[in-house]
Amino acid sequence: MANIQHVAKQAGVSVATVSRVLNNITTVSPKTRLKVESAIKDLNYEPSMLGRNLRNSESRLLLVLIPSISNPFYTEIINGIENTAIANNYNILLCETDSNPQRENIYFNMIKNKLADGVISMDPAVNMQKLNELAEQYPIIQCSEYEEGGSIPYVTIDNELAAYRAVKHLIKLGNKRIALINSDEKFLYARQRRNGYERALKEFDLPIREEWICNTNQLDFENGIQAMRKLLQQPEKPSAVFAVSDTLAIGALKEINASQLKVPDDIALIGFDKISFSNMTNPTLTTVSQPMYKMGSTAANMLIGSIKGNKVESIILDHELVIRESTMG
Amino acid sequence: MANIQHVAKQAGVSVATVSRVLNNITTVSPKTRLKVESAIKDLNYEPSMLGRNLRNSESRLLLVLIPSISNPFYTEIINGIENTAIANNYNILLCETDSNPQRENIYFNMIKNKLADGVISMDPAVNMQKLNELAEQYPIIQCSEYEEGGSIPYVTIDNELAAYRAVKHLIKLGNKRIALINSDEKFLYARQRRNGYERALKEFDLPIREEWICNTNQLDFENGIQAMRKLLQQPEKPSAVFAVSDTLAIGALKEINASQLKVPDDIALIGFDKISFSNMTNPTLTTVSQPMYKMGSTAANMLIGSIKGNKVESIILDHELVIRESTMG
Repeated sequence: MANIQHVAKQAGVSVATVSRVLNNITTVSPKTRLKVESAIKDLNYEPSMLGRNLRNSESRLLLVLIPSISNPFYTEIINGIENTAIANNYNILLCETDSNPQRENIYFNMIKNKLADGVISMDPAVNMQKLNELAEQYPIIQCSEYEEGGSIPYVTIDNELAAYRAVKHLIKLGNKRIALINSDEKFLYARQRRNGYERALKEFDLPIREEWICNTNQLDFENGIQAMRKLLQQPEKPSAVFAVSDTLAIGALKEINASQLKVPDDIALIGFDKISFSNMTNPTLTTVSQPMYKMGSTAANMLIGSIKGNKVESIILDHELVIRESTMG
Repeated sequence: MANIQHVAKQAGVSVATVSRVLNNITTVSPKTRLKVESAIKDLNYEPSMLGRNLRNSESRLLLVLIPSISNPFYTEIINGIENTAIANNYNILLCETDSNPQRENIYFNMIKNKLADGVISMDPAVNMQKLNELAEQYPIIQCSEYEEGGSIPYVTIDNELAAYRAVKHLIKLGNKRIALINSDEKFLYARQRRNGYERALKEFDLPIREEWICNTNQLDFENGIQAMRKLLQQPEKPSAVFAVSDTLAIGALKEINASQLKVPDDIALIGFDKISFSNMTNPTLTTVSQPMYKMGSTAANMLIGSIKGNKVESIILDHELVIRESTMG
């Protein structure tokens, strides 16, 4: 295959001149440019992007760390990241970490090896010590999940307020026995949403009862089914459930239906995320809408700014409670 | 930042020796290796993977082209690809083409520029002319969708047979008015599934009626809703529907419920793909299970074989009809 030397020889110019043409440097005369371009065409020469990147020391690749692509919550965020990246001549590398530190290391090494220019981490289980170390030298943004009081810029929503509003909505409908299906409270968003749940209950003098709080390891449908099964076995059943993800809520709905109970008549139900499935269930699911696309595009803009050397501030985006059939009496 | 020259100087060896240590070449004495490793540590030297790849001319990256990450059908396939890739020291670059030729070009250029070693294309809307051109020089595998009589190796299922079996199941339940919700028949799988649908009807002397065949542009829930709405407006309504994706079937179910009809009593329903949500609907969805994880791991193994220079043959995997509530009388 032709290399840059062949092109230079064929065009009768120096390698440096070919390089200037390839890099669109304007000090090349139109005549010389034509000669080089014609030699490139004749020889079917394809400049090596790797070589070019080595000189520019930029890869135009952004790494996006997600715990699992199975959760539709990430889909819209990724669309936002991807469209913004492409509009700025970046491509994205989707890295499913599976919350596995070894996989994480592979991706962190890509950054260290300059195979990517920066990272957007959406993994709540990311190794924060490693991420912080990496952030001392490389551009990193956290999206959705972040470290409280940490130094890595992030974009997120006010999880505590969102949960507070969801539970308050259940209280206003007359519910006094409100359960929480939460994920693992090692995650910040899970602790924040629990705080919001408790704040609403306290404000209306309702009891916080441990037997009405279920924690799950994962956010799969199956975890929602299991959690709801436990809640339905309580001597005093809850009249309403707030689940911290739509996938958990949809699993809970499945279990409620299987128990011959009706949503919302017997049990009202709220999810979180407004994934597209949440409008396909029967009944449709009341949920907290996160501006997922905007969160993605904001994260991408922050990262690209950071790569350019700009100072980047963290951003809290708005959320919205979307009331549908699962809480309509 | 330290470079390879600094390391060589500090260790008192040549740059070539440092390179041999970095590349694990065994001709270096243990003593020299120790000196080099200690210099690397002292100087906090990080070898540039880009530089190394330029010499090896391999990137250890596989491109995976998908039309949209919103369709959960792709999720399990990607898990299969990713686990197999990582087990073979490759990473994958997920490329959402959005069926947009410009995006496709960006990714094809990455191959030409040696930023990736090969491609798995799952995009039914891929530009086949460009993909074939690329396949003359670079390793490419098609997964799920492929070109009939083409030269690019593929892994898929027998779509015609799968559709035939699904429709035959509806016929055996006593249905005589069976509708088809198909995607765009510019896609091979859509034409194959229609053929299977027609074969079953013909075999049992049932009419093929154009007004009972709906084609959609996309596979979103909304497309299933719209298609079902049309079918329900027919003077003679179908008693059963076969949809070529679970997402379309779930949209159809939503519309049937909204019309105060019952599945399966009024209308039996079959989807395709066995996405996890197909077991969360009420009633649960009868569907054709594709071995998605295996399809992904097979595609990855084929691609890695092809990168190694092996001759790779196309593979047809088995499918299975999973009977659930939406066809149980």
